[in-house]
Amino acid sequence: MSKNAKRHWKTKLHEIIYEADTKPGKLFDVILLFVIIASIILVMLESVDSFDSKYHNFLNISEWVITILFTLEYIARIITVKNPIKYIFSFYGIIDLLSTIPKYLSLLLTGTHTLVALRALRLMRIFRILKLTRYIGESTNFLRALRVSRAKISVFLSFVFILCIILGTVMYLVESDKNSDFTSIPRSVYWAIVTLTTVGYGDIAPATALGQFIASLIMIMGYGIIAIPTGIVGAEMSRSERKKIPTNTQSCSNCLSNEHRDEADFCYNCGEKLNT
Amino acid sequence: MSKNAKRHWKTKLHEIIYEADTKPGKLFDVILLFVIIASIILVMLESVDSFDSKYHNFLNISEWVITILFTLEYIARIITVKNPIKYIFSFYGIIDLLSTIPKYLSLLLTGTHTLVALRALRLMRIFRILKLTRYIGESTNFLRALRVSRAKISVFLSFVFILCIILGTVMYLVESDKNSDFTSIPRSVYWAIVTLTTVGYGDIAPATALGQFIASLIMIMGYGIIAIPTGIVGAEMSRSERKKIPTNTQSCSNCLSNEHRDEADFCYNCGEKLNT
Amino acid sequence: MSKNAKRHWKTKLHEIIYEADTKPGKLFDVILLFVIIASIILVMLESVDSFDSKYHNFLNISEWVITILFTLEYIARIITVKNPIKYIFSFYGIIDLLSTIPKYLSLLLTGTHTLVALRALRLMRIFRILKLTRYIGESTNFLRALRVSRAKISVFLSFVFILCIILGTVMYLVESDKNSDFTSIPRSVYWAIVTLTTVGYGDIAPATALGQFIASLIMIMGYGIIAIPTGIVGAEMSRSERKKIPTNTQSCSNCLSNEHRDEADFCYNCGEKLNT
Amino acid sequence: MSKNAKRHWKTKLHEIIYEADTKPGKLFDVILLFVIIASIILVMLESVDSFDSKYHNFLNISEWVITILFTLEYIARIITVKNPIKYIFSFYGIIDLLSTIPKYLSLLLTGTHTLVALRALRLMRIFRILKLTRYIGESTNFLRALRVSRAKISVFLSFVFILCIILGTVMYLVESDKNSDFTSIPRSVYWAIVTLTTVGYGDIAPATALGQFIASLIMIMGYGIIAIPTGIVGAEMSRSERKKIPTNTQSCSNCLSNEHRDEADFCYNCGEKLNT
Repeated sequence: MSKNAKRHWKTKLHEIIYEADTKPGKLFDVILLFVIIASIILVMLESVDSFDSKYHNFLNISEWVITILFTLEYIARIITVKNPIKYIFSFYGIIDLLSTIPKYLSLLLTGTHTLVALRALRLMRIFRILKLTRYIGESTNFLRALRVSRAKISVFLSFVFILCIILGTVMYLVESDKNSDFTSIPRSVYWAIVTLTTVGYGDIAPATALGQFIASLIMIMGYGIIAIPTGIVGAEMSRSERKKIPTNTQSCSNCLSNEHRDEADFCYNCGEKLNT
Repeated sequence: MSKNAKRHWKTKLHEIIYEADTKPGKLFDVILLFVIIASIILVMLESVDSFDSKYHNFLNISEWVITILFTLEYIARIITVKNPIKYIFSFYGIIDLLSTIPKYLSLLLTGTHTLVALRALRLMRIFRILKLTRYIGESTNFLRALRVSRAKISVFLSFVFILCIILGTVMYLVESDKNSDFTSIPRSVYWAIVTLTTVGYGDIAPATALGQFIASLIMIMGYGIIAIPTGIVGAEMSRSERKKIPTNTQSCSNCLSNEHRDEADFCYNCGEKLNT
Repeated sequence: MSKNAKRHWKTKLHEIIYEADTKPGKLFDVILLFVIIASIILVMLESVDSFDSKYHNFLNISEWVITILFTLEYIARIITVKNPIKYIFSFYGIIDLLSTIPKYLSLLLTGTHTLVALRALRLMRIFRILKLTRYIGESTNFLRALRVSRAKISVFLSFVFILCIILGTVMYLVESDKNSDFTSIPRSVYWAIVTLTTVGYGDIAPATALGQFIASLIMIMGYGIIAIPTGIVGAEMSRSERKKIPTNTQSCSNCLSNEHRDEADFCYNCGEKLNT
Repeated sequence: MSKNAKRHWKTKLHEIIYEADTKPGKLFDVILLFVIIASIILVMLESVDSFDSKYHNFLNISEWVITILFTLEYIARIITVKNPIKYIFSFYGIIDLLSTIPKYLSLLLTGTHTLVALRALRLMRIFRILKLTRYIGESTNFLRALRVSRAKISVFLSFVFILCIILGTVMYLVESDKNSDFTSIPRSVYWAIVTLTTVGYGDIAPATALGQFIASLIMIMGYGIIAIPTGIVGAEMSRSERKKIPTNTQSCSNCLSNEHRDEADFCYNCGEKLNT
């Protein structure tokens, strides 16, 4: 094989694996998507004891097949990429490695097998594959809205966290004397988070009247302050929606007025014919 | 009966059953609404053992009456519609069939009787009947807003689902060694969904400190990302509200086009001078 | 007492009881507010067995005092109002009666005493009393926003209700064979409401894998469709806020342009002095 | 030390402790932040019995170190501030005192030691320290939005509270005869709050059919009215966002006023011609 042909072969493989403009590129991504989902289902079924004991051999063989497929993909990615080191230490590179290694390790060491579950992290590649579809616009819209309001949201979340620490501590002081569920501050803080976020497991619940009164206040507070993140993201999205509506980019050649309606054929200001 | 009279009779019945402009048509819909609700209440009461054992005969007879009424309605619908095959295999056609058949099957086979509960699906016809009332505007507004933001919402829901799979798997790895409730990955994923959506049954709860810490993060995350669907639908509704406000009530005297800009002096469609 | 003096006396009492422009009128409302709150606290404490057994006499006497006060108020309201019949059968009139009668009935019949708790309904009068304060603007803003979006909200709530009936029935069919918590359709519907609204008591929980899968879908649905009422009210409030901002009602006497800034002294269009 | 030097020394210390423009001032705040967090972690760990029994001495010594550091800081704050009395009785002054005193009291009295947990209140100082960072804009934006809609939110919260009292009382009347969890009105009100806010512990749950029906209504209500605070804050934020977008960046060359309308040709304040 000449050096030129080899480069050509690598370029083509790179196109298939990393891009999705060509037909084989798209096919590769769709197959990858299904293999990832299949691997997740396998890992899930294997963790169910009653299922694992029945179909242990089938599951084990299937997993080896998928591990080998993932290994081949991993090697192909390293070969075809220009800067292999950068890929290996990238976010997706590490996840790709983590999804193959545990199965090999399970040959040498016992107990590492459950780490195969780390393969679930490969699900995140789905977001990357989805970029190819018509959903790309939606997801970027999402991420941008989240990125813009990131500062506000992190202020809000740290506010909630500090609030829960303070409220949890107060509940510990109120309920600790009695034979209650609030045995330590971390546990009380955990309870405060469970309550404020309106999750409410019920594994820990206040027993005294004062405790129940404070709990009521926390619940109503949690019910109220959920409005804050909603308000933040809502205002952000509302604004980005508003920005998106540039009614029209045409400009009248006579009087230079703009913001014409999309269907406009004539300038609303001077009656001049518009270019359509 | 002449062929003409027969057609006339069929047209009239079609009008009563499928339309609601005439008085008997409205009456038919109202009666149907009440019979459907009565049938649902019957099915509900029958499923309550203590009630069923007392009034078994009454319930059985009532159910036969409703089944026969529904059968007559089903036959009338097939007779009067132009394209019976299309109706039979339509969404509502299948539901209408499913709400009569189980009772007849119960004569032949035992155990199929509980399928009578499928009649609850007929409740969806209520939405269709409501179309006749003043609520029609509201429901279409709803459906349109949901349809427009469908792509965004499905991206969001799949994001939540993948997140729950990853978080559930992480919790399985963290809690699995201990004698915990997290016995398998599907169960852990189920727990993650229960927690992230702030439902919080409490049938499965983390026991270790690390598990409770991760659970806290999931709760706060769930508390925060509920803002996203709210933001999506809110922005959509906000925009549709904005659009609804007709920019202008002017109508061009030449081409009759409307929705001119407020400042417009000339028609955007034909260049005619507007009355201002 | 002359007839005139009597009318004068009645008018004055009416002013005190029903209005709040005068000083005694305000004082009456504030005292009433405190007596209502005191009566609620009394009823609450009485329902706590451990408290009632200790302070039974004190509670009983206090309640008689409050009952007599309420009776006097009720009589005064009937005497001073122009149309007593209308008051007696009005919403507040019935509540006022219901909050005094049970105590008198308890002398004749046993068991009616707990109905004293109906007095809690008098708390609704608080909203009326609050109308006097600076909160009036806020509450009317509320009520108007709710009234405007009432049609939309009732469509939404009935949609949620029907959805819960259908989902509850499906869960009953899925889980009924097993020894599960889903013993009847009403119970399953109750569970569906508990789950969809993200309350999640945990007293009823799915046991089968399929049941848990459907439950997961319901939870994610509930997590998603909470956006709808929020979107409705949010858009409504947003719009009413927008409407409230009429930048300015001034119109330039020279060029008739409007929408001037509030602080504007000169027309932004032609530089003419504005009337301020 | 001359009086002048002493004043200079106090001014410098004041700058370090109370301000953050200088490098040592920033350093002080960062160190304080870490000491506060460390003290919270210590208090938390101490409350965990299994941890406390192992490392009791280490925890005790660490706590004394932190108590002495906080005492020194407290004294330094009193010395350097212009009006010590005002600081001592200020919100932060009282918290600072409460976070040092319990440890000293524990030498004299037993049982006061758990009050050390009050130190968690010092976490609120984090908000003050964060003011130095780039988050300052975000937090003030928050606080302003909350302050503006405070009246509306308090009306809403009192509405929720009154609603819960009424609903709780109704549930008490409905469920009290049976051997149910609704043993007293306060307990029923507590349950109503747990349900309406969608927390749903499940420690108290209705047992009768009627009780479950009312509970369903409460849940759907709670699911619906969560839209109200969201709508309030959302509209507020939406409006403040709108306001923030400066309509215009022009500045009048005559009177320097700005925020002109986009179409303005003349200054709204002095009538001067604007550069367009």
